[in-house]
Amino acid sequence: MDMKRQINRMKELFNPASVAVIGASDKPDKLGFHVMKSLTRGGYPGRIFPVNPGAQEIMGLTAVPSVSACDGGADLAVVVVPAGRVPGVFRECAASGVKGIVLITAGFKEIDDPGGAALHEEIAAIADEAGIPVIGPNTFGMINLSADLNASFTPEFSLLRKGSISLVSQSGGISHLLGFMAMRMDVGFRMIVGLGNRLNVDFAQMIAFLSDDPGTRVIVLYIEGIDEAGAFMETARRAGGRKPILAYKTGSGQVGDAASRSHTGSLAGSHEIYTASFAQAGIITIDNTETLLDAAKAFSACPLPAGSRVAVLSGQAGPSMAACDVCEAGGLRIVRFTPHTQETINRLLPPLALRTNPVDMGPAWYDSDAIRGIIKTVMDDENVDGILLLMMFASANRDAVAGIADLLKGWEQRKPMISCIVSPPGIWDEAVSDLEASGALVNLPTPERAAQAMVNLWRYRKMHEDPNRLM
Amino acid sequence: MDMKRQINRMKELFNPASVAVIGASDKPDKLGFHVMKSLTRGGYPGRIFPVNPGAQEIMGLTAVPSVSACDGGADLAVVVVPAGRVPGVFRECAASGVKGIVLITAGFKEIDDPGGAALHEEIAAIADEAGIPVIGPNTFGMINLSADLNASFTPEFSLLRKGSISLVSQSGGISHLLGFMAMRMDVGFRMIVGLGNRLNVDFAQMIAFLSDDPGTRVIVLYIEGIDEAGAFMETARRAGGRKPILAYKTGSGQVGDAASRSHTGSLAGSHEIYTASFAQAGIITIDNTETLLDAAKAFSACPLPAGSRVAVLSGQAGPSMAACDVCEAGGLRIVRFTPHTQETINRLLPPLALRTNPVDMGPAWYDSDAIRGIIKTVMDDENVDGILLLMMFASANRDAVAGIADLLKGWEQRKPMISCIVSPPGIWDEAVSDLEASGALVNLPTPERAAQAMVNLWRYRKMHEDPNRLM
Repeated sequence: MDMKRQINRMKELFNPASVAVIGASDKPDKLGFHVMKSLTRGGYPGRIFPVNPGAQEIMGLTAVPSVSACDGGADLAVVVVPAGRVPGVFRECAASGVKGIVLITAGFKEIDDPGGAALHEEIAAIADEAGIPVIGPNTFGMINLSADLNASFTPEFSLLRKGSISLVSQSGGISHLLGFMAMRMDVGFRMIVGLGNRLNVDFAQMIAFLSDDPGTRVIVLYIEGIDEAGAFMETARRAGGRKPILAYKTGSGQVGDAASRSHTGSLAGSHEIYTASFAQAGIITIDNTETLLDAAKAFSACPLPAGSRVAVLSGQAGPSMAACDVCEAGGLRIVRFTPHTQETINRLLPPLALRTNPVDMGPAWYDSDAIRGIIKTVMDDENVDGILLLMMFASANRDAVAGIADLLKGWEQRKPMISCIVSPPGIWDEAVSDLEASGALVNLPTPERAAQAMVNLWRYRKMHEDPNRLM
Repeated sequence: MDMKRQINRMKELFNPASVAVIGASDKPDKLGFHVMKSLTRGGYPGRIFPVNPGAQEIMGLTAVPSVSACDGGADLAVVVVPAGRVPGVFRECAASGVKGIVLITAGFKEIDDPGGAALHEEIAAIADEAGIPVIGPNTFGMINLSADLNASFTPEFSLLRKGSISLVSQSGGISHLLGFMAMRMDVGFRMIVGLGNRLNVDFAQMIAFLSDDPGTRVIVLYIEGIDEAGAFMETARRAGGRKPILAYKTGSGQVGDAASRSHTGSLAGSHEIYTASFAQAGIITIDNTETLLDAAKAFSACPLPAGSRVAVLSGQAGPSMAACDVCEAGGLRIVRFTPHTQETINRLLPPLALRTNPVDMGPAWYDSDAIRGIIKTVMDDENVDGILLLMMFASANRDAVAGIADLLKGWEQRKPMISCIVSPPGIWDEAVSDLEASGALVNLPTPERAAQAMVNLWRYRKMHEDPNRLM
């Protein structure tokens, strides 16, 4: 299938006008129940058909006996019937004009039974013959928040804020983890896709589709093993120049590697080879879920730094040192300010030691104007490509921090600003959310994580300086 | 001063029967206001004297003109007057029998003015002559949660849960950060002490005191630079055999190192030398705030593993691989189970690939008995020294997780169990807190962080296998 046609089919899969749930149920111990709940509670605006020959009505919607009985047809079929019944269901889907399938059912090639592999081949042939892209089998499903479409067995994914991060994952566990972490960190997602055992939609197809999706600003991959390395690398190389691709690949240890081989049914192989290939393809590799989500958040809301020169402005000395350590280890430079900037800071701060970069603004805590002045002059400093703003505070210095909100909001982040503004629960959480919503900055929970996210922005920016890396 | 006498003085400092706030104020733009708020709102049961010659009453308490006017005397003086007035205040404290001082005031040797250093020497001489231990100058203060004593300018520290972690820190910013993180992670503290510029109480004195403090189970240090390396090493070596000491030292980069030199006014010097010396002294070095707090939480609530053999039980494959990678990188072994354990698991799980270690319990999600059976047999497996339990779940599988709570609670953690049980906000947060409160396990937010905390338990345990490391 050519790329353009394939991307169009993927668009239909992720933006259906109607959805049939084949295996819908009103029993909470069935996945078909939770899928129905996800679709109905998630606010999906299209028509939903519960398909279950034994039911009259499920969650207030009239049930139909088969996908072919859907009035007007179903664009997307979410399939949750036992594996043995899937070939028949697929044939019906093909016959009735279904445009895409999410196959949640497990029990295909991942089981220790040759019957599973045979079934996998059988349904793959049906889907390919009909030109139907299939997410799965053995997946929790997929969510397109921009279309209010939660085609998964986890209704809570609909609680996520809408954003511009699209996640493609080989693990339901990691997808749920990142989603739940994102809820607590107020990170917005556009799509979350559980590839499962990849009948005909693999990383390459997803990357091609997402690189063409205007609402996706950053592509995040969780990878256990890749089957078609050539197609993957080529697609990633092309897409990575258009928008950042971040990848977390597990299996760096022996046990994890062996586990991923058997879990995904694909060749996992040397972690070093993966890492080297990803770098070649312009992919930013990241080695844990938290750093991955932090980076995704930063890429989704920050401009790229023009260079490696970072300013660290801090309400206290200690956090600035922690951030400087991470910056320096990651290739960022804690530069000298221009003389104009330095003079301004010297005027605003008493003669304490940390007035160069990093700047300990602590002595100015009770003088909002001074803190504003320092931040403003550093924003305008042509020696500075990115700003880390670190402030730990409680009720004693709440006013000083409140005094800088307007300055930050008006700035529109001409350079990336990543902050670590931390206070006791409830004291300033909303104000930080407001700042993030205004586009002024991205806030992360520790100085080290803020610094590491800046490092990752710079890693991507640097890849573009050397075009050979992206060819 | 001999060690025993010194420790007794420290006990008095941290457990005063009465406190005078010298520089108390009812104006919210004064630190003396916030200190008064911390003491009164923090539930301190002893007598509080606001000392301010210009006030009649502060926060409902009768003000006195000087520390010598405190009826019955003040055991502890918290000093927040300008630097120039501190020598006089110290003399009065000495004369009136004050047993300990928290000197919040800044402006001594950390400022670029020889007058500051002279003042520092002057007050040090007064304190030493009188045998008064002093926390500070240039500190946010100290908190002894076990005595409901919040002698800091941050009232919110009193929101912390009481626990067995004692933090000694050279940075107010890092102390506040760790405290606020702990509130969000429900980690309990015993003491938080901001050393500031260390007039006569330095790391060595604090470590000696805390190693003798029965309520302190783990000592956490945030270090920028050490002045008296010999005393520090000797005390740490002695104390580290009694209870774990965790240290985070910033300044690994050039800028951070230079900043810490000027911030603390002490020799910072090569990060490598510090790390090597810490290892010699039996201190666990940790390189960021989050890992530090995770480890402190684990040490405060887990037994030590008898060996390096870990079992990874997971509701999904992906998170288990992420955890295995971290375990293997940190020297833990993902071992084979005994034949009995493996047979039990094989009976409880369908023939899927991940039934050895790590175990993907996913196929048993809807069968609480099976999950209970797997966990139980691994708890009893003599090949297993520690357990990582990883579960990402939402409403669809809430019941399965609820079904294991009783098993876990009855177990009393005979081996360390660190979990990563994660669900959308509100779904199971309380149940996880209950499990932690019962002593069944310690829960951390990601599989990697859970695994790293287990690695750190093992690092400490391993130091004790080789007694030469602890001599």
